[in-house]
Amino acid sequence: MANGENAWLDWVRRQQRSARPAGLRLGIGDDAAILRPRGGWEIAVTTDLMAEGRHFRRGVDRPEDCGYRLAMRGLSDLAAMGAEPWMLFFSALWPQNEPPAWRRAFHRGLDQAAKEAGAALAGGDVSSGIQACFDILALGQIPRGQALQRDGARPGDRIFVSGQLGQAAWGRQMLDQGHIPQNPRERQALRRCRRPRARWELGQTLRGLASAAMDLSDGLSSDLDRLCAASGVHARIHETHLPVTGPMLQRKTFLDLALNGGEDYELLFTIPRRRLTDMPNGQDLSIPIIEIGEILPARRAGKPQRLWLETKNGQSQPLEPRGWDALRSHILL
Amino acid sequence: MANGENAWLDWVRRQQRSARPAGLRLGIGDDAAILRPRGGWEIAVTTDLMAEGRHFRRGVDRPEDCGYRLAMRGLSDLAAMGAEPWMLFFSALWPQNEPPAWRRAFHRGLDQAAKEAGAALAGGDVSSGIQACFDILALGQIPRGQALQRDGARPGDRIFVSGQLGQAAWGRQMLDQGHIPQNPRERQALRRCRRPRARWELGQTLRGLASAAMDLSDGLSSDLDRLCAASGVHARIHETHLPVTGPMLQRKTFLDLALNGGEDYELLFTIPRRRLTDMPNGQDLSIPIIEIGEILPARRAGKPQRLWLETKNGQSQPLEPRGWDALRSHILL
Repeated sequence: MANGENAWLDWVRRQQRSARPAGLRLGIGDDAAILRPRGGWEIAVTTDLMAEGRHFRRGVDRPEDCGYRLAMRGLSDLAAMGAEPWMLFFSALWPQNEPPAWRRAFHRGLDQAAKEAGAALAGGDVSSGIQACFDILALGQIPRGQALQRDGARPGDRIFVSGQLGQAAWGRQMLDQGHIPQNPRERQALRRCRRPRARWELGQTLRGLASAAMDLSDGLSSDLDRLCAASGVHARIHETHLPVTGPMLQRKTFLDLALNGGEDYELLFTIPRRRLTDMPNGQDLSIPIIEIGEILPARRAGKPQRLWLETKNGQSQPLEPRGWDALRSHILL
Repeated sequence: MANGENAWLDWVRRQQRSARPAGLRLGIGDDAAILRPRGGWEIAVTTDLMAEGRHFRRGVDRPEDCGYRLAMRGLSDLAAMGAEPWMLFFSALWPQNEPPAWRRAFHRGLDQAAKEAGAALAGGDVSSGIQACFDILALGQIPRGQALQRDGARPGDRIFVSGQLGQAAWGRQMLDQGHIPQNPRERQALRRCRRPRARWELGQTLRGLASAAMDLSDGLSSDLDRLCAASGVHARIHETHLPVTGPMLQRKTFLDLALNGGEDYELLFTIPRRRLTDMPNGQDLSIPIIEIGEILPARRAGKPQRLWLETKNGQSQPLEPRGWDALRSHILL
């Protein structure tokens, strides 16, 4: 019985030491959780999968990092909508040959992320299998009609990103190669891979200000392409503006990571020119916020190229979406 | 590109032919869906996993049946709370070596179930892997304070179940053995396994009437045990009252399926004696509703036995929870 479902759910419930959060009428233990939304507000709902071999490797990734990162994936989607984190639901197909300690470590990471965001774990489901697979459901609350969408970018709007790009992908390379970080920049990138911090404060600040927003989960080239497709616009970004870290000798590699590396969980957003003076101060939020380009009108004649990269010698070259594709990208295993 | 994530999401969106359902402000295609709950109502939220090798087998189960059954799992949890089906979110780790036709068939089954329940598919996530794994998130709406919980059963309350028990487990045996159904009863059991129909109409009828309710997903012995544990009571059920189908010669087998077989997705509920006359008419709902036993006070002295089965010759014997355990039960693969 000690390793059965009831014992495990008892353990999960005992971890919930904090007071019952606002709006949670009934939590873990019944057929469904019962939530009471704030009157007149809307709810943002998002789900994110994390599968062994695709998004992490056992033996390479620590279970507590996987749990933390999974929660942050959901919280990052809420941030992109400008929503306040509210509730998390967590479904786990646990790896059947790992001891309960592995599950507990995973849960600790997830709980820590939830706590940092002020969200409560309100339910989920559990089973076990050969290939571990997890699904996080994140619910946020947002004042009626104020959600940030992808489809509002207009020609002339400026394009911004938070934080630094390509950090998580660089960290992933180090993890995969078993490379021990040698300096503060490498340590920071590894940490950004293991423990990304979603930008929910920034997202809420952008309500009523950004014309479009989304989170950077698959890589700037693919995510900006989706934002432009949703908004019916084109875009140009400037190589020299991109917040890229790394030894200058390897700049080409780091540029590739910044454009096409996923899992940064930073925000990508557009601000109308007349609102630029209302921009939040990145220093107040302790996050760098960098202008990287501008939205262009969609050109319909000829063979329309949606994204352009202006290189450091002033040339414009087509930028193709080459980030993560959930159904085509390589398997880590 | 045709098999990539964007093309797949375009296909999924094109399936959504129905009008935008009430409360869905923003559906598939942004970082999160935006929902507007009915003023003054509460929300029921549940997630259910379905993993290859655990809950279905490729080659044995048809993908459209898997999709249908997955949606019904979530809808059954909503039924158990007395909630109106509202929105579904669907996360899929698709089997990487199956053609897109497999995914489309799975989706058709899921869409059909959603349509029957009047729920909308509002979002989800997608990836692919070696072992297919799916997670359904179901949201329902329910008038404030009227959710049916597990913890309200009191001594003297009568115990009821809807439908017939053990049908899905019997159907599963036929599927596993490659047995072709030979008569209407076998055909019905196989259909109940492939296409269970959650009882959301009955659940809503039970609001303000049932003292406790839950759905039968893991088997009566385990589910009643959980209901009694949550309510702090014991229970006795009567073998001769159990709605069991099957050749009488094999009654022992069918009794075992009825007590311990999972995936029936019927409702288990308790009604206070003074409210028995207010019981819904099963004929109106086209579902048999059968009284199977009564709630007993919890005996604390000695070695308390929570569940009792009164056999057909009038003897009381201890009933152990032997249904499905998500972390211990056997793997189908």
